[in-house]
Amino acid sequence: MRIAVVLFPGFTALDAVGPSEVLARLPDAEVRFCAAVPGMVPSADGAVQLHAPDSLAHDARPEVLVVPGGPGTRTLVNDARLVDWIGRVHSTTTHTLTVCTGSLLLGATGALNGLEATTHWLWMDALAAYGARAVQRRVVEAGKIWTTAGVSAGIDGALALAARLAGPQIAQAIQLSMEYAPEPPFDAGTPDRAPAEVRALVLERARTGRFPSR
Amino acid sequence: MRIAVVLFPGFTALDAVGPSEVLARLPDAEVRFCAAVPGMVPSADGAVQLHAPDSLAHDARPEVLVVPGGPGTRTLVNDARLVDWIGRVHSTTTHTLTVCTGSLLLGATGALNGLEATTHWLWMDALAAYGARAVQRRVVEAGKIWTTAGVSAGIDGALALAARLAGPQIAQAIQLSMEYAPEPPFDAGTPDRAPAEVRALVLERARTGRFPSR
Repeated sequence: MRIAVVLFPGFTALDAVGPSEVLARLPDAEVRFCAAVPGMVPSADGAVQLHAPDSLAHDARPEVLVVPGGPGTRTLVNDARLVDWIGRVHSTTTHTLTVCTGSLLLGATGALNGLEATTHWLWMDALAAYGARAVQRRVVEAGKIWTTAGVSAGIDGALALAARLAGPQIAQAIQLSMEYAPEPPFDAGTPDRAPAEVRALVLERARTGRFPSR
Repeated sequence: MRIAVVLFPGFTALDAVGPSEVLARLPDAEVRFCAAVPGMVPSADGAVQLHAPDSLAHDARPEVLVVPGGPGTRTLVNDARLVDWIGRVHSTTTHTLTVCTGSLLLGATGALNGLEATTHWLWMDALAAYGARAVQRRVVEAGKIWTTAGVSAGIDGALALAARLAGPQIAQAIQLSMEYAPEPPFDAGTPDRAPAEVRALVLERARTGRFPSR
C-alpha cells in the first residue's frame, strides 16, 4: 500500500508526522513524502525540516493521500499547481486523510462540496466557504474522505484509518507500540473547555504568529 | 531559551516531533536539531528524514535538551561519542526531557542512577539496568530530568514541561492551538489495557521490526 504525504512550506510538523508515524507501522505499507520542490521542506515552526524525496510530477497514484495543514495553507489554497495535484491524486485514492487546515486545501479542489468535514476550530468558516458542512468533531468520515481537527487530531484519525485498512487488531497494536494512552496535563484542548484567557492567547498567536512573552 | 533535540539514525519520528511541536510554540524559545553527522537524519520508519543543521561539535549549551528514543538506541547506548555528548550537555541544562527509549541513552551517561525514571513499556528492564528506579508512568519528574513513556508520551511530557517553563496559561494555550483533546479510537495504549493478542503483535514487531501481514 502506497501512502503519500504532501508537504509544502509552512506545514505543521506534527500534522504530517503524527499520521506518518501511525501509517508507516501498517504491514505492507510504504509512506513517502512529496512536495512541489523535492528536498528539505521547512515546517511552520522554523525548527523541523522534513525531506520530501518525490516531486509532485512523480506519478505514484498512492492508495492513501495525507494532507497536513499549517499556516502555509493560507496562501496555498490559491496555488493552482498544488490544489490541482491534490485533486487529481485524491480522485484515485481509496482514502484521503486531511489534518487540521489540510482540509482547506482539499476543499479548494471542490472535493468537500456538500460533505461533512472538519478542520482546526479557528478555521471552521473558511472550511464552510468551500461548501463543506463544517462540524466541530475530532474525526469526520465522509465516504473515502477523512478530515480531522487541529494538529494532534491527525493521530486519532490515522489510527481510525489504520483500523479500516488493516483491521482493529493491527490498529490497536500500532496504538500500543506507540503507547498512545494520552494524559494531557490540562483539559484545555478544545475551545469550549479552555478558559477565555487561553482562547484569547491562541487568537493572538493566529494574528501575530506567536504567543506573547511574559 | 535554547532547546536542542538530538537526532540519530533510527530515532522514532514522533518522539522528536511531538515535543518539538509543543516546545517551539513557547514564547522566546528556539528549537534546534543536532546530530553527530549534520544533514538529513533517517528515522526508524524509513519515511521521515529530519534535517539537523547542527553537529554535536556545535557548543550551544541549550537550556533544554530533548532526547528521543527509537530502535537506533539499541546500539547507540554503546556509542561513546553520543553518550558523552548527552552527558555533557545534560550537565548544564535546566531541564532534560527524554521520550521513550531516549531514557536509555541518558541512562548510559549514569545520570539516572538512583532516580525514578520511565521508558517505553517494553524496555523497563533495560532502564533498570542503568540503576534507575524504573516505573511505568506517563511522565516522571526527577529533579531537572523528565522521562516519559513510549513515543506519544513525549507530547504530554513536553506540555507539562512547557507549563513549568512558561506557566500553565501558556501551556494550555499551546494545547489549545494544537487542539490536543485526544480521542484514541481504542483503549489499547498500555500493556495492561490492551488484549493479550495485541500485546503479542507488539512483541513480534519488537523482534522482527514489523507487524505480520494478514
